[in-house]
Amino acid sequence: MVERRKPIAVAEAVRHVMKFAKEGALEWVRLEDSYGRLLAQDLVADHDVPPFDRSPYDGFAIRSEDTVHANLENPVEFEVAGQIGAGSVFTETVGPFQAVRIMTGAQIPGGCDAVVMLEITTEEERDGKHYMSLKRSVKCGENLSLKGEDVKEGESLVPKGTMINPGTMALLATFGYSHVPVAKKPVIGVLATGTELLEVHEPLEPGKIRNSNAYMIASQIIRAGATPKYIGKVTDDFEKSFASVEEALGDVDMLITTGGVSVGDYDYLPAIYKQLGANVLFNKVAMRPGSVTTVAELNGKLLFGLSGNPSACYVGFELFVRPIVRTFLFSSKPHLQMVEAVLGADFPKPNPFTRFVRSKLSYDNARLFVAPSGLDKSNVVSSLADANALMVLPGGTRGFEKGMKVQALLLDDQLGCEWPWGESPLSSKL
Amino acid sequence: MVERRKPIAVAEAVRHVMKFAKEGALEWVRLEDSYGRLLAQDLVADHDVPPFDRSPYDGFAIRSEDTVHANLENPVEFEVAGQIGAGSVFTETVGPFQAVRIMTGAQIPGGCDAVVMLEITTEEERDGKHYMSLKRSVKCGENLSLKGEDVKEGESLVPKGTMINPGTMALLATFGYSHVPVAKKPVIGVLATGTELLEVHEPLEPGKIRNSNAYMIASQIIRAGATPKYIGKVTDDFEKSFASVEEALGDVDMLITTGGVSVGDYDYLPAIYKQLGANVLFNKVAMRPGSVTTVAELNGKLLFGLSGNPSACYVGFELFVRPIVRTFLFSSKPHLQMVEAVLGADFPKPNPFTRFVRSKLSYDNARLFVAPSGLDKSNVVSSLADANALMVLPGGTRGFEKGMKVQALLLDDQLGCEWPWGESPLSSKL
Repeated sequence: MVERRKPIAVAEAVRHVMKFAKEGALEWVRLEDSYGRLLAQDLVADHDVPPFDRSPYDGFAIRSEDTVHANLENPVEFEVAGQIGAGSVFTETVGPFQAVRIMTGAQIPGGCDAVVMLEITTEEERDGKHYMSLKRSVKCGENLSLKGEDVKEGESLVPKGTMINPGTMALLATFGYSHVPVAKKPVIGVLATGTELLEVHEPLEPGKIRNSNAYMIASQIIRAGATPKYIGKVTDDFEKSFASVEEALGDVDMLITTGGVSVGDYDYLPAIYKQLGANVLFNKVAMRPGSVTTVAELNGKLLFGLSGNPSACYVGFELFVRPIVRTFLFSSKPHLQMVEAVLGADFPKPNPFTRFVRSKLSYDNARLFVAPSGLDKSNVVSSLADANALMVLPGGTRGFEKGMKVQALLLDDQLGCEWPWGESPLSSKL
Repeated sequence: MVERRKPIAVAEAVRHVMKFAKEGALEWVRLEDSYGRLLAQDLVADHDVPPFDRSPYDGFAIRSEDTVHANLENPVEFEVAGQIGAGSVFTETVGPFQAVRIMTGAQIPGGCDAVVMLEITTEEERDGKHYMSLKRSVKCGENLSLKGEDVKEGESLVPKGTMINPGTMALLATFGYSHVPVAKKPVIGVLATGTELLEVHEPLEPGKIRNSNAYMIASQIIRAGATPKYIGKVTDDFEKSFASVEEALGDVDMLITTGGVSVGDYDYLPAIYKQLGANVLFNKVAMRPGSVTTVAELNGKLLFGLSGNPSACYVGFELFVRPIVRTFLFSSKPHLQMVEAVLGADFPKPNPFTRFVRSKLSYDNARLFVAPSGLDKSNVVSSLADANALMVLPGGTRGFEKGMKVQALLLDDQLGCEWPWGESPLSSKL
């Protein structure tokens, strides 16, 4: 008998899962190991930037008041009282009509309030002394990088939950983070079910296929910022599958299974959830592919029952698992970023379910275009490699035409999004 | 005395560097360790996909010719001769008016040429036998996923030089790549010069700043796909700097130095290149920031002399080092991808040099916008963390206004670009 399941809307399904989203733990790693991790605390400035008034150019530090009468006919002459390289400091105070030779980045000596660039000065040696003269007046503060003009001490510069990129690394180093508080990666178990599955090194056999979903999901887990733990694969056998799921649950923060969630005779996940006493959040979503995606919860731990179909599995991960992972990693924008783009293909056939089509987003003339990255068949593995977006075609009674605006979820983006589902007019049917 | 240098155009500088671009070596890694690496060979299918004619649905495999007379008034009845789960095979041949119960993904039994979905059939038990009847005719090939319809054996699916993403992982697993030929990562030395530099763990001192460039560059190196080797920092001392550069060169595939390339009194890199006997490709580029960026070559090994200014250092890496790294990694699109976007800010002041402004690219209503991610001052470290693009403002005699189209280089993109410099009308002045 075919079990009748009631499909729920994608946004509703996401909302159900997000009820169990929680922040994880913090760990300290060395700065050089922190690239690509997510900050577990806001990055805070430990000092002003610049930390002192400094020179943005090679030139001479002077007192601007000494230049008020300078012009082309009446150059003003300064005695060069010393010189400062970047990293050294001029300890004396500069007096009237004295100048100090200063390098880019060096601290402005006491008494000085301006820098003149080397190019507008004339130098002269006379009686063993060094002089510099200037044919224009200079304003107080001219050519100074002022203490704190970039960043003030105590300022929060990057919020927690942000992925550390090269620019963030520069900030962390600048503010003395030799160790960085990053979000601990959750461990996500991956268990593939299906008698038809071979390991990757095994030769093909009639009726069998190699287990590709586990490796695909493992890299989606890494891309999202978590650590995959491959539990293995089990054949379509209730007792074995149950034992594997139960044992795995103890070792992981959440568990993903692939396959076994449909209503076929060999789909044991529904019975496993029942026997575990897990709370099934939903077992049918009004989406293609992946309508049989099932999520259950046991003592606050989530069990993601993704479809065995590669595309459905891929989509199910990005919609339901990713926001849970990113929340665990302290992100306040845990969902994939959703953008609008011009549709590059016709989808004449309406579908009552919302479709998520593996697509390629491209740019032309300051516009965004999105087109399927392969044939739109849920079993076409080969279109997955090219995909950098999931095109979203809301379910309903109409088809979609080339040139229409549609929404797309960015797969490689690290910024994320607070809640992409149902806010804009385009999303209202999700 | 200020040395006079002749600036060359950005495109010309890139072309000079790319003369020394070469492909690196291949290494084999386990499939589970290959995510994020770049393929060193094309990914080739070792079998057809699907590897056999299979069922895309749960249903019954039948011979379509048996249904030609079926309609609402005259259902046709089949004897159910067996059933096949995914992963098992039906070894007998199916005869006239026989049907085999078949699960999603299972191989079509010999003799059958169509599948009917469970939902349109009626089942009955009679005299200990199992029957299925059908009220419509079915076409030959209906509901079959045909052998090779997705991918043909021997087909090249993903070109070498492509970064392995979750979709590529699925393909690698499907085609039996338990080990994957990936590009060996080049080792890039990083040596920071400047007496003003403190290590990250050291407390601030007057006149000094922490060494942020080395950590920033190290993560740019990782993002580009290579391995950084932090040599250390040296003070502005010719003998020490020369010894450090000479020693480092022996251990790395290429060497990046930060600082010391300007024309200040403490800028020793030009003298070091001279003493090494290195061939200086250029020492001034018509760009801001980073006009003093210098690249030299010694026995085919590149020495990148990046500016000590954080923004200039960042830009210099992405323009000149990245394409060398990506070529080493077998990519035929080694440069950053360049896109057009609508300018979100005014730049009224013309600049004879081409400007690369750390920017944030954003999307609205299927259009791309680009605006500076911080103040446009080359010493503003804090704007780097938010940047996902470098806005390109060609040098010349005019300013740029909000709403104009400009070009931008994508920093987080992995697709790359063959040659972004000077092909489009917008690029002609680079």
